[in-house]
Amino acid sequence: MLFPLLYAIYYKEAVINTFILSMSITSLSGFLLWKSFPSKDPIGIKEGFTVVTLGWILAAGFGALPFLLAGTFSNFIDAYFETMSGFTTTGASVLTIIEGIPLSVLFWRDFIQWLGGMGIIVLVVAILPALGAGGMQLFKSEAPGPEKDRLKPRIKETAKLLWQVYIIISALQVGCLYFTGMPLFDALTNMFGTMATGGFNPRNLSVGAYNNPVFEIIITFFMFVAGANFTLHYQVLHGNIKSLFKDREFLFYGGVVLTAILAITTELRVYIYNSIFTALRYASFQVVSILTTTGFVTTDYDTWPAFSKCILLILMFIGGCSGSTGGAIKNIRILLLFKKANRDFHKLIHPRSVTPIRVGNKIVSEDTMNYITSFFFLYILIFVISTFIMSILGLDILSAMSSVAATLGNVGPGLGLVGPSQNYGFIPPLGKITLTICMLLGRLELYTVLVLLVPGFWRK
Amino acid sequence: MLFPLLYAIYYKEAVINTFILSMSITSLSGFLLWKSFPSKDPIGIKEGFTVVTLGWILAAGFGALPFLLAGTFSNFIDAYFETMSGFTTTGASVLTIIEGIPLSVLFWRDFIQWLGGMGIIVLVVAILPALGAGGMQLFKSEAPGPEKDRLKPRIKETAKLLWQVYIIISALQVGCLYFTGMPLFDALTNMFGTMATGGFNPRNLSVGAYNNPVFEIIITFFMFVAGANFTLHYQVLHGNIKSLFKDREFLFYGGVVLTAILAITTELRVYIYNSIFTALRYASFQVVSILTTTGFVTTDYDTWPAFSKCILLILMFIGGCSGSTGGAIKNIRILLLFKKANRDFHKLIHPRSVTPIRVGNKIVSEDTMNYITSFFFLYILIFVISTFIMSILGLDILSAMSSVAATLGNVGPGLGLVGPSQNYGFIPPLGKITLTICMLLGRLELYTVLVLLVPGFWRK
Repeated sequence: MLFPLLYAIYYKEAVINTFILSMSITSLSGFLLWKSFPSKDPIGIKEGFTVVTLGWILAAGFGALPFLLAGTFSNFIDAYFETMSGFTTTGASVLTIIEGIPLSVLFWRDFIQWLGGMGIIVLVVAILPALGAGGMQLFKSEAPGPEKDRLKPRIKETAKLLWQVYIIISALQVGCLYFTGMPLFDALTNMFGTMATGGFNPRNLSVGAYNNPVFEIIITFFMFVAGANFTLHYQVLHGNIKSLFKDREFLFYGGVVLTAILAITTELRVYIYNSIFTALRYASFQVVSILTTTGFVTTDYDTWPAFSKCILLILMFIGGCSGSTGGAIKNIRILLLFKKANRDFHKLIHPRSVTPIRVGNKIVSEDTMNYITSFFFLYILIFVISTFIMSILGLDILSAMSSVAATLGNVGPGLGLVGPSQNYGFIPPLGKITLTICMLLGRLELYTVLVLLVPGFWRK
Repeated sequence: MLFPLLYAIYYKEAVINTFILSMSITSLSGFLLWKSFPSKDPIGIKEGFTVVTLGWILAAGFGALPFLLAGTFSNFIDAYFETMSGFTTTGASVLTIIEGIPLSVLFWRDFIQWLGGMGIIVLVVAILPALGAGGMQLFKSEAPGPEKDRLKPRIKETAKLLWQVYIIISALQVGCLYFTGMPLFDALTNMFGTMATGGFNPRNLSVGAYNNPVFEIIITFFMFVAGANFTLHYQVLHGNIKSLFKDREFLFYGGVVLTAILAITTELRVYIYNSIFTALRYASFQVVSILTTTGFVTTDYDTWPAFSKCILLILMFIGGCSGSTGGAIKNIRILLLFKKANRDFHKLIHPRSVTPIRVGNKIVSEDTMNYITSFFFLYILIFVISTFIMSILGLDILSAMSSVAATLGNVGPGLGLVGPSQNYGFIPPLGKITLTICMLLGRLELYTVLVLLVPGFWRK
């Protein structure tokens, strides 16, 4: 909260005390927690899951303090929704009017996304595999390059390396935006939303407010980067550019982007825009924004024809790559489900064959495949149950479905009542709570949260 | 075609020649096919899949002859759509006005469902397991009761036993309907739609046309029966009633029915009907009709509130039990996916544990689980791709989604533009072809058809 405080002081805003008070409450609580649980036992699997899940839940609680104290939101549920939306890099907002809020508070709103993005990369790349839980090691088995080139396995080291990469790319983006004419505050806050694939924006009209194709190209590029695996970026920054094109997930991810852009551009050209370039401009920005689960908007895509909307809805389920800040199911899981289906067809014709599933030259263990197929089922199951709840609360089916898809996938805006020109403010409290849980579940890869609910977890 | 011909003669309808001609063409083609391929080699896995898929494709082709020759449809695509809809027991119709068509032709339209239902039970219970392809033996491993009580394994014997069960229950239903006052023609044709979980009805307003609670209760009961495993019915008819309550899939199926009825009744009571009984009447009929994938209608459920429609949409994906005439994913697969997710949670906490998945006291092999998880993924994948196609053709997202869910799941009516008071007539030819393929894919459990498209299938 130091950064927004500095902003508040610089701009002489009335919210200086807000941030000082929030900082004090947060530090004091942290200090008390630290003193209350002085255990130095090594952290096991169960503690790991608990710490991660509770960590996110508490971070969103303390992160909501500046909003509450500054009066940005009149109730805790709204403030918590917005903060969880930030820390989970979702970008779903209950704010009706963004411009008018103190800049330091806006800065905080965008900054928590960037922090969340940092957290999630380290969580997925370093912490979950270190917990040693079989199927969570998805990333580990997917790390490209020969053994010796692997990122150092210890959590601290890995975290440090990845944060360097994250900060370097973030700085690059701010530089690009600033030197092409974007004000520094906007460049910073837009970068926060981009690198975290968050989607909060300091403008009501999101990136569309600038109506500047150069900004859009820069942001599209960095959204695409943020949706890809950060260990790949680490390789690229160390000169190993080939690793990009050897990574099957990255190729799949690129393929999805190109196919979706082609399809939507075609439909937009036929039904909406006279110029193929205009169609391409809006299609490519929106495809990358939704697929990477950022949720920035340059035009109200809810007015697009059904096929384009349908594609965007499906992209919300696919999401980014493993080891990225993107959410949802992730490209690697979809790719592996395709490979598994193909393998099983082969087995139908040759019942006695035993063929392992490979990605590149790596064999994916059946344990990992088990987690992936269950993940897919659970993802659909949570989607269905949450959609039920949203439809009870009065949302039409499409709005209900897309509100869940957009929060569970950490995208942000959906379709219909929660479309890009709308927001989540009108949703009843129970609905906001449901969607807040969806954000957390999706962000922490379902298992990390759900495992805490398994009765056996707390036994022994 | 002999039965509708007899009807045509009895009613002195002008379509007598239509049926004689259709019979001649079909018999001649059959004779020529028989003479052209005199091979007596034993049928292998590949031949099995080919025969089943081609069998359904050709049956729908020849079955369409009476409609074409009688002028019920002006083009082949419509006639083929309607016939495939019958043989796959889907019940999706392109007919705008049903009453007015010659009774013998209406009889044929409903009768092909009953034939299709007969075919599918034998296919799933006897033929697919006999093909020896691992995961298709789902039914076999699920057959209840001790070894000696199992249905005789040879295809012919199994087919004979199941057909007896099918005919006995069918006769029971006709009896119930007839003796409570339904005209014989209606009793017969309604039974065809019920027992096959088809959903074609001789009346424009479907079962709602009778506005008779007794008929509705009878039809609801028999739809529920038709959506359950016919080997269970075989057991029950042989006095082993306990086998019903020992069968986990049947219990799950019953649980889904009760939960859905309770939820929808509550919402209908709050928002639409003043009487709890009226709410219960419409809710229970529609839940059983959609879950069993029958598709009979007593009221325009498309006007119900979002939650109820949402539930019906999800029921379209769940479908009947294995070994029933119901379609869609099937209760046993959903149940096993739940059990697998639960097992994988356990493994997350105890990484070295190896726990097989059980249904009752039977262990489900990992091979079978592999097919089930891939089946689930493929089902969703085909749903998504077909929804894309329907949305390109101009259907709104919900109509596109439900048209696919209702044909892939062999339900019949969907929501929105393909809702219960609408029909599939307005859909462009490419859409009708897509949905016809969906019906076939869903009916033949995806693999049977898709395996023919795997390049490796035709090699060697």
